[in-house]
Amino acid sequence: MSVSRRSLIGTSAAVVGAAGLATGGYAAGRAEGADPTAAGAAASYPFRGEHQAGIVTPAQDRLHFAAFDVTTSSRAQLIALLKAWTHAAERMTQGLPAGDIGPTEGAFNLPPDDTGEAIGLPASGLTITFGFGPSLFVDAQGRDRFGLKDAMPEALAPLPHFPGDLLDPARSDGDLCVQACADDPQVAVHAIRNLARIGFGAVAVRWSQLGFGRTSSTSTAQTTPRNLFGFKDGTANIKAEETTDLAKHVWVSDDSWLAGGSYLVARRINMTIEVWDRQPLGDQESFVGRTKASGAPLSGGGEFSEPDFAMPGSDGPIIRQDAHMRVVRPESNDGIRILRRGYNFVDGTDDLGGLNAGLFFLAFLVDPRTHFVPMQTKMTKVDALMEYLKFTGSALFAVPPGIGPGEYVGQGLFEA
Amino acid sequence: MSVSRRSLIGTSAAVVGAAGLATGGYAAGRAEGADPTAAGAAASYPFRGEHQAGIVTPAQDRLHFAAFDVTTSSRAQLIALLKAWTHAAERMTQGLPAGDIGPTEGAFNLPPDDTGEAIGLPASGLTITFGFGPSLFVDAQGRDRFGLKDAMPEALAPLPHFPGDLLDPARSDGDLCVQACADDPQVAVHAIRNLARIGFGAVAVRWSQLGFGRTSSTSTAQTTPRNLFGFKDGTANIKAEETTDLAKHVWVSDDSWLAGGSYLVARRINMTIEVWDRQPLGDQESFVGRTKASGAPLSGGGEFSEPDFAMPGSDGPIIRQDAHMRVVRPESNDGIRILRRGYNFVDGTDDLGGLNAGLFFLAFLVDPRTHFVPMQTKMTKVDALMEYLKFTGSALFAVPPGIGPGEYVGQGLFEA
Repeated sequence: MSVSRRSLIGTSAAVVGAAGLATGGYAAGRAEGADPTAAGAAASYPFRGEHQAGIVTPAQDRLHFAAFDVTTSSRAQLIALLKAWTHAAERMTQGLPAGDIGPTEGAFNLPPDDTGEAIGLPASGLTITFGFGPSLFVDAQGRDRFGLKDAMPEALAPLPHFPGDLLDPARSDGDLCVQACADDPQVAVHAIRNLARIGFGAVAVRWSQLGFGRTSSTSTAQTTPRNLFGFKDGTANIKAEETTDLAKHVWVSDDSWLAGGSYLVARRINMTIEVWDRQPLGDQESFVGRTKASGAPLSGGGEFSEPDFAMPGSDGPIIRQDAHMRVVRPESNDGIRILRRGYNFVDGTDDLGGLNAGLFFLAFLVDPRTHFVPMQTKMTKVDALMEYLKFTGSALFAVPPGIGPGEYVGQGLFEA
Repeated sequence: MSVSRRSLIGTSAAVVGAAGLATGGYAAGRAEGADPTAAGAAASYPFRGEHQAGIVTPAQDRLHFAAFDVTTSSRAQLIALLKAWTHAAERMTQGLPAGDIGPTEGAFNLPPDDTGEAIGLPASGLTITFGFGPSLFVDAQGRDRFGLKDAMPEALAPLPHFPGDLLDPARSDGDLCVQACADDPQVAVHAIRNLARIGFGAVAVRWSQLGFGRTSSTSTAQTTPRNLFGFKDGTANIKAEETTDLAKHVWVSDDSWLAGGSYLVARRINMTIEVWDRQPLGDQESFVGRTKASGAPLSGGGEFSEPDFAMPGSDGPIIRQDAHMRVVRPESNDGIRILRRGYNFVDGTDDLGGLNAGLFFLAFLVDPRTHFVPMQTKMTKVDALMEYLKFTGSALFAVPPGIGPGEYVGQGLFEA
């Protein structure tokens, strides 16, 4: 007697198959077996809107970021990919499988249209944010790859080399990027993995980075987290609630296809934490310009107190000229602010037996020429923290605006 | 006017300084700013007991595992390290800073005795489990390194080479190991980082591995999680509640220093997930021997139903002879069971543009010669999953018994 395997599929599969986006509930197809230990299980965010999600969205705890090389030379195939990614990304952010059929239904002689490791996990606050790198527009020889050269913004010129850069090409650049943030790493990994699967034949993963313990709060409702130096990080970050500053410092507002979008600077910053850990507490605080405990400026007060850069210490100002917070504060940089969204990372061990660890810096900003290059240049010259930092990866992307109903991501670029 | 920086330290530092283990509360010194999004925030586990924590403890969601080389040749320094690690590990598992002073108090001209990135985070269910590798007892030339040679258990002989092993020496072996599991990766990373810091001059990290999404449940109260093949994993795992089988299959019960301890087999198993994702659903289920949706044996029933290995399918038994679950089931292996405690991992991207991803297999067992080598040998010969697996790291450790009041980890070995 032969038993049909189809008849052995549990009822959960039927739920997956039946659940469409129209049912509305996040995780309608996945959450029936939700793990109660998962953090942020209840959160889900709309995929479509004026801006892409994952920028001012309250920063989730986990990250999987991937940069892709486009391997096809066909513009039509590239557009088809972006349509397929839009469809799958919208589904996954709502807690649904990547494809309409799901990981456990459909024909047994076909590969599933979802890989399955997120079955039973809720949306977990997943956001998926897409970006376009300079090399999508022109190749290394300056040739127009997909008929997009004329639409390439001037601000998307590749970042210059900075002093102190020890960039690994295998951790830098990329034609496309996808930032997946969630409160459960398995959900973030599932998203990137399925987009890579869907893109097979059109794109290949160039590099990817996992992160944890968001190092920036992007909402006033969030506490400021700590980086691997043990200090609060991102106290002066632009928050979602500061709409005037977002319009000024984050969102592109010209009349191009990028209006409502932004630029994303990604920098992989290794920290020499073993050396840092042997520095006296007082030196650590001097380098940062803040106390380790509360994150208050060394001039006094609480975390959010205004620093007094003139207050004298025992040897010059108490907040040293080369203190990190002084170097990067808006008042030291023509009022420039950025929206940071970085994550801590530990990627095993380096060749010297130290932890391969640091900060994966992600920042959204209106123009890298005004909002990143000057500050980074200054940091490399005068910031006391530079001695403990090694820049090992770098990339720049234009982040298209939000995706309207029926649209695919970047549609304005291709159908201008 | 000069301002004393000490006076600027927030009140939380004073709490840290005052909180001793005697105050009893987990996280007495850290939790005042606890992030409400952290999972499992309320959990803490006793550090001392009959067995080490982190074995039958309900598997936490995140892992940082590190293997260390001992760089000192001094037995006294090695013992001092184990005492210092015991002290710090007990504190951290209770949500306290690694050292008595903490990250933000003490002298400003001394490095802090805690690195600080876990300030404000609760214990998060942290467990820290220690193991001793074969190379701690004898070096590659068979020489007695620390006067421990005579105490080396026969079962701790290095694992043999298995067919299919493509081991990276930089991801294998080690004199000591530390498994840190928690519901927050920042807490697990903080634990390993501080133990490495404390061990500076006596040990160096040889390799380390982060993991997420536990792939095995170790308690009947937990649901069975999914591996990166998208399947439930560890359904037949020994659970904490099965004390008779734990005594038989996990805990060493001879009259040696290892009584009450166990052996830990660590295997880094890369999965070729891009190839897997292109296999039809029916093939995936045939390779595993279970349905993808519910995890039920292909012979029918639910996840925990007994498989019917004789039930015919359309071509031989419906659970194929080479189906993974059939190959590794106890009834196919002289009744052998193991306690699996593995984690999924994604370590960026491999040289071919695929995700460097898979399963970091951790198993606790009474004797690797009876409980691991035969099963692994058999798997490499007949398991259908082998085509999608690449073994890239391997290590074996003896796991000392639990630490009694006033003892340090492994004391029975050194003071026998």
